[in-house]
Amino acid sequence: MLQDLREAVCEANRELPAGGLVTLTWGNVSGFDADASLLVIKPSGVPYGKLTPASMVVVDLDGGVVEGDLRPSSDTPTHARLYRFFAGRCPGRIAGITHTHSASATAFAQARTPVPCLGTTHADHFHGPVPLARPLTADEVDDGYEAATGEAIVERFADLDPVATPAVLLAGHAPFTWGATPAASVENAVALEAVAAVALATLRLRPDAPPLERHVLDKHHDRKHGAGAYYGQPASPSPS
Amino acid sequence: MLQDLREAVCEANRELPAGGLVTLTWGNVSGFDADASLLVIKPSGVPYGKLTPASMVVVDLDGGVVEGDLRPSSDTPTHARLYRFFAGRCPGRIAGITHTHSASATAFAQARTPVPCLGTTHADHFHGPVPLARPLTADEVDDGYEAATGEAIVERFADLDPVATPAVLLAGHAPFTWGATPAASVENAVALEAVAAVALATLRLRPDAPPLERHVLDKHHDRKHGAGAYYGQPASPSPS
Amino acid sequence: MLQDLREAVCEANRELPAGGLVTLTWGNVSGFDADASLLVIKPSGVPYGKLTPASMVVVDLDGGVVEGDLRPSSDTPTHARLYRFFAGRCPGRIAGITHTHSASATAFAQARTPVPCLGTTHADHFHGPVPLARPLTADEVDDGYEAATGEAIVERFADLDPVATPAVLLAGHAPFTWGATPAASVENAVALEAVAAVALATLRLRPDAPPLERHVLDKHHDRKHGAGAYYGQPASPSPS
Amino acid sequence: MLQDLREAVCEANRELPAGGLVTLTWGNVSGFDADASLLVIKPSGVPYGKLTPASMVVVDLDGGVVEGDLRPSSDTPTHARLYRFFAGRCPGRIAGITHTHSASATAFAQARTPVPCLGTTHADHFHGPVPLARPLTADEVDDGYEAATGEAIVERFADLDPVATPAVLLAGHAPFTWGATPAASVENAVALEAVAAVALATLRLRPDAPPLERHVLDKHHDRKHGAGAYYGQPASPSPS
Repeated sequence: MLQDLREAVCEANRELPAGGLVTLTWGNVSGFDADASLLVIKPSGVPYGKLTPASMVVVDLDGGVVEGDLRPSSDTPTHARLYRFFAGRCPGRIAGITHTHSASATAFAQARTPVPCLGTTHADHFHGPVPLARPLTADEVDDGYEAATGEAIVERFADLDPVATPAVLLAGHAPFTWGATPAASVENAVALEAVAAVALATLRLRPDAPPLERHVLDKHHDRKHGAGAYYGQPASPSPS
Repeated sequence: MLQDLREAVCEANRELPAGGLVTLTWGNVSGFDADASLLVIKPSGVPYGKLTPASMVVVDLDGGVVEGDLRPSSDTPTHARLYRFFAGRCPGRIAGITHTHSASATAFAQARTPVPCLGTTHADHFHGPVPLARPLTADEVDDGYEAATGEAIVERFADLDPVATPAVLLAGHAPFTWGATPAASVENAVALEAVAAVALATLRLRPDAPPLERHVLDKHHDRKHGAGAYYGQPASPSPS
Repeated sequence: MLQDLREAVCEANRELPAGGLVTLTWGNVSGFDADASLLVIKPSGVPYGKLTPASMVVVDLDGGVVEGDLRPSSDTPTHARLYRFFAGRCPGRIAGITHTHSASATAFAQARTPVPCLGTTHADHFHGPVPLARPLTADEVDDGYEAATGEAIVERFADLDPVATPAVLLAGHAPFTWGATPAASVENAVALEAVAAVALATLRLRPDAPPLERHVLDKHHDRKHGAGAYYGQPASPSPS
Repeated sequence: MLQDLREAVCEANRELPAGGLVTLTWGNVSGFDADASLLVIKPSGVPYGKLTPASMVVVDLDGGVVEGDLRPSSDTPTHARLYRFFAGRCPGRIAGITHTHSASATAFAQARTPVPCLGTTHADHFHGPVPLARPLTADEVDDGYEAATGEAIVERFADLDPVATPAVLLAGHAPFTWGATPAASVENAVALEAVAAVALATLRLRPDAPPLERHVLDKHHDRKHGAGAYYGQPASPSPS
């Protein structure tokens, strides 16, 4: 069932430790099949080196396991809530989600501060600051914590385009990123960690470092993602 | 003698440099056999790459060598004191101890500051701040320094649960962590270093970063370690 | 066409991830053939591991593709502008340019601060602070952004010697470095990132750290690059 | 000539990049043969991967090349001055010197601040702060810069024991370390970089972090280096 997606999700999960994004088992990647309305996700607490396509778990958008011998990631309800949101907001554009606790992005999440856009490196991937979702109340935590996490992200994107800004920070927690494929969501996790690390260093050097000028922000986003994009090769509009 | 434990302790020690936790020979892991009331520990000053199960040293809880050709770690009396404490406080729960000088945790120890719980990453492993044991007096240092180190840790845990908070910082020195097995104690050393590194980055970004809300702290601890834990797989309640 | 230069440029590009200078595809190296007045550059958006000499793109100094199946780097007009400048200012001295978003150098670029010369490590490679080029106006960004980037660098070097100071920071963007060959430009990118990282650490420790004394700056530059240079071996005046 | 020492010096130099201590060719190790009153040192500007025992250069204590086809390190007069000093002050105790530009130690050198002793990790290797030698005057730089560098170190150790404190920082430059053998001097370079990195992190967390208590400093030094040392194995009093 969903063999290609199982393979893509397995491979994307295995990239997490190679990319320096995770410690121990602190992270997971999922993929979404819009036709079947199912997602494929990492099993909970299993080391990356032991993952196989067959050990991935197939889950429906209510979080119910459809196929798989292992428990899905404990963060599955968050992923499911996000795919429901993306299906309504930008159908067919997002089919992969990555959650990590990568160090620099998590520092911003713990400081409860968006990652400001201080340079073109950031603008190439995220069209403006990476936003911060609000902390959850005690009631939300008690009653479906992981689904409420997804709800807080959806709430934060009420006026934001999730395709142009494919990342969010959870207050006191860590980042989620997404993309057109599971691999693209990992690439955005790599980009987020890199720009967060440089932002940390920039702010230490100059706490009042100015945001990137709006015209440069738009230019960098458009030359890579806009209608007249000229970054990368024409045959592969979203090269890795 | 204690061949399985020798192998587990040897392997756990060899993980220290691979995990980026030690420089030169600055760290050691021990394991405890409750039936025999003996501990197995790294020999002093031997490079990790040269360790074999046969070179591990078997020591009793008074620190006397029972089997082994080499001197045990100079920190052996600290380990022995802790196993005696754990045997009384939480029998059967802790059978591995790791001591490292990992960089970020040691920075907190040298700053003589507990590692605050600023996020869920921390809460997944340590149920609250990682506490700081007091500095030793000149008399304590003169008369059985390493045993006195253990005594200061025991004193610090008078009102703390060592199972829920499996780590401590020694003022002006470095961390100790522990766990159900030697490998689990190394895993907690990895987790401590990672959360300390992110805490350092968070506090540089925002010196008054707020502690994680109590309800989120409890939720993350309980979903992994509580009676109704649902993180990881049922067959392996403490997955790595 | 220009087979030797294709190979040198391909190899230099492949050194970027090995040297820790780039994340994803954020960087490119070019080489210049003065006789043909052509440059060879990385194709846009192609992962370093997939580069071959044959996939490099040959471009003239107006940015037109002369040979190659792939689009050249989107930064090509910046490289071309610089080679035209170097050809007039210091003919035959510079035949390689490297652009990266390496973390510490980019932090200075984002903080819009030159990298001060705080020590001999810096002086061995750059004869004084690494300068900052001004931000571009909205009009410049709209009308030939990448060429205007080159223009701003040229403007910044009106009173500076590009051979003695083979690097620049672009405000809100990242560094460019250059050298006698493509490999030498990468070596200067490595040196810039290293000295920027140490400068960041120095300034955190002591925000008013003094610049290196002028007589030491000149001595270190001259013993390596001056007429009576005695660093390295006589047969290879610019050893790597 | 001095074949064993050539091999030891070559191997020690090759450890520098493996230990993360050097960028490009920024570092060198020498060894001293007291009977011959000769030193063996890395050739200048040669990459570490290309070093062989045969390419090492044999030099007398006036800096004259005795055997070797290549130029010795440009820092040779500094090494020679130090061996002359050690021969008088602590004959037979020091036969290896390492010079690096390792990042954290160099940050202290550039900030012109000794590395304070904030913890036991430091005390195990250096019996107190790692001192800072004064900057050189313009005259000293003009007239035998590298020998004057050695002279400034000797001046700084007028009242310090180079065996108990086997390291120094040069203002605006970088560290030198030494030890009983070339390998031991590299080990001290590794230790210095590690304790400097942790000191940087400690001081960022708490700028007024207290020095290690004197009684703990002495205890850690004595248990490893004193008459009744019990760290390491009796058969190998200076284990790595």
